[in-house]
Amino acid sequence: MAITVVGSVAFDSIETPSGRRERCLGGAATYFSLAASFFTDVRVIAVVGEDFGRRQEAVFQARKIDTRGIEHTAGKSFFWEGSYLDNLNEAKTHITDLNVFAVFEPKIPEGYRDSEFLFLANIDPVLQKRVREAMPQAKLVAGDTMNYWIKDHRPALLEVLKGLDVLLINDTEARMLADNNNLVQAARGVLALGPHTLVVKHGEYGATAFFGEHSFPAGQVRAAHPFRAPALPLAEVVDPTGAGDSFAGGFFGYLASQSELTPAVFRRAMFYGSVMGSFAVERFGTERLQELTREEIDKRFIVFRELTHLD
Amino acid sequence: MAITVVGSVAFDSIETPSGRRERCLGGAATYFSLAASFFTDVRVIAVVGEDFGRRQEAVFQARKIDTRGIEHTAGKSFFWEGSYLDNLNEAKTHITDLNVFAVFEPKIPEGYRDSEFLFLANIDPVLQKRVREAMPQAKLVAGDTMNYWIKDHRPALLEVLKGLDVLLINDTEARMLADNNNLVQAARGVLALGPHTLVVKHGEYGATAFFGEHSFPAGQVRAAHPFRAPALPLAEVVDPTGAGDSFAGGFFGYLASQSELTPAVFRRAMFYGSVMGSFAVERFGTERLQELTREEIDKRFIVFRELTHLD
Repeated sequence: MAITVVGSVAFDSIETPSGRRERCLGGAATYFSLAASFFTDVRVIAVVGEDFGRRQEAVFQARKIDTRGIEHTAGKSFFWEGSYLDNLNEAKTHITDLNVFAVFEPKIPEGYRDSEFLFLANIDPVLQKRVREAMPQAKLVAGDTMNYWIKDHRPALLEVLKGLDVLLINDTEARMLADNNNLVQAARGVLALGPHTLVVKHGEYGATAFFGEHSFPAGQVRAAHPFRAPALPLAEVVDPTGAGDSFAGGFFGYLASQSELTPAVFRRAMFYGSVMGSFAVERFGTERLQELTREEIDKRFIVFRELTHLD
Repeated sequence: MAITVVGSVAFDSIETPSGRRERCLGGAATYFSLAASFFTDVRVIAVVGEDFGRRQEAVFQARKIDTRGIEHTAGKSFFWEGSYLDNLNEAKTHITDLNVFAVFEPKIPEGYRDSEFLFLANIDPVLQKRVREAMPQAKLVAGDTMNYWIKDHRPALLEVLKGLDVLLINDTEARMLADNNNLVQAARGVLALGPHTLVVKHGEYGATAFFGEHSFPAGQVRAAHPFRAPALPLAEVVDPTGAGDSFAGGFFGYLASQSELTPAVFRRAMFYGSVMGSFAVERFGTERLQELTREEIDKRFIVFRELTHLD
């Protein structure tokens, strides 16, 4: 099944203890698409400026990602500059230039309208909702958000949450969204806002899925029992940028590639999410995802199993 | 196989968001013994004052823990007062009165001398080393330590580490001991100091075992691959005191109960460690461990498997 993703396609200047890169290709939709493209067809909705040229386009083409929904307009693409010098788990933002993203009006190509899987990456919830409503055929909808929308755009965000099958956010965001420091209680609070399933990303400690009463996946009988996927302990995290979006791409890409969404498939999707996140951070920007092979992914999946399984 | 544990038996006054308890029975050796007692025979070496009476003794007796090595002397027992009001993951210490512990000279009863398993709980490394040397028959030795010894008693601690099969510490301690912020690199650094295996406890995110070249357990062929046990997501952590010691007790107790120390046994031991930690925090002090049954433990072990396993 094809996935349509709406989100940012951007340029990032990144500094980490491993070095610095200027204006690498980034953005949530970019990381998500690259990661998901190893599992299924991916279609992107985004906006870029004149600085987005053949070289950037080629990154998507190489992974056969449908870019008809990437609108090219006058001006510059979204630009982010940040560093992780003190703490690899938290970016320090130096510059955020929305540029053409400030007036982003998502346009959905006709060819995208049969996408049964829809991913609403971290953008203005007003836009997330608009895209969701414009794609009523989507049978499974997942999304991400961030502290800025949780704090200052709560009513719009709550509208989006009502229509989500899966919400993927990190610990801090989950606690903030539910206004509760205990993760299990926070998860219950978030699930009460609408999403059938909540995936909380813990960075270097992996991710936990919490299941609501209106269970997704169907047949999920352990509503009381969450599921935890590990993260791979890595001797070097070169650049954490995009790890969460790559997790989402691996997770949702794997789900979309399966004919049935059983609890077992959901669990494997969590592992594939962690696998893709572990690759993303091995090099700067999207470098590692660009050169990755499906064989490497499946090998690492086995490592993840050995990391966690008793037998 | 019997375990001998040396460490503190103490009184704790604890405040958490769930409430407050005055002078409950505590101390690393207490939590460790109670947790391990569900798996094997446990013998304690500690010192207490005149405030340790029949009521406290009865807690050990009820779990058939050998207390011949608990020395009773004039004065008061070790006393700790702390709170977890802002952060359940980190205790704020208000009072530490070493009392009789300040002049602790561990004495090993004759009846303990055939113990094949020895656990050196978090005490002065000079004493840890003395006990280790006095029990040369111990075939498997594990230990714990803390930031205070790592910072200010490093030479003595390094002597202890050389003789350990397994060191159990938390993330912060591992990073401090190796002076390295990356956990995998820190683990390599710690393993180079002597322990064959390092178990790093992550609090609410579980624990990871890293294996050195001189592999323990024998047959551990995945020196490059760590093993991660989850922690149980809990809707209420009443009191985190003793969670790490209870982990150690479950882990080491299970190991000591098995006839062969295979990699599979080691993995199950990690899970039993997490299981015991998850119970310990459900009520104040040792309350939950005192009323626990082996049946509850095995039920929760299955929950841990479901939490992490794909199939």
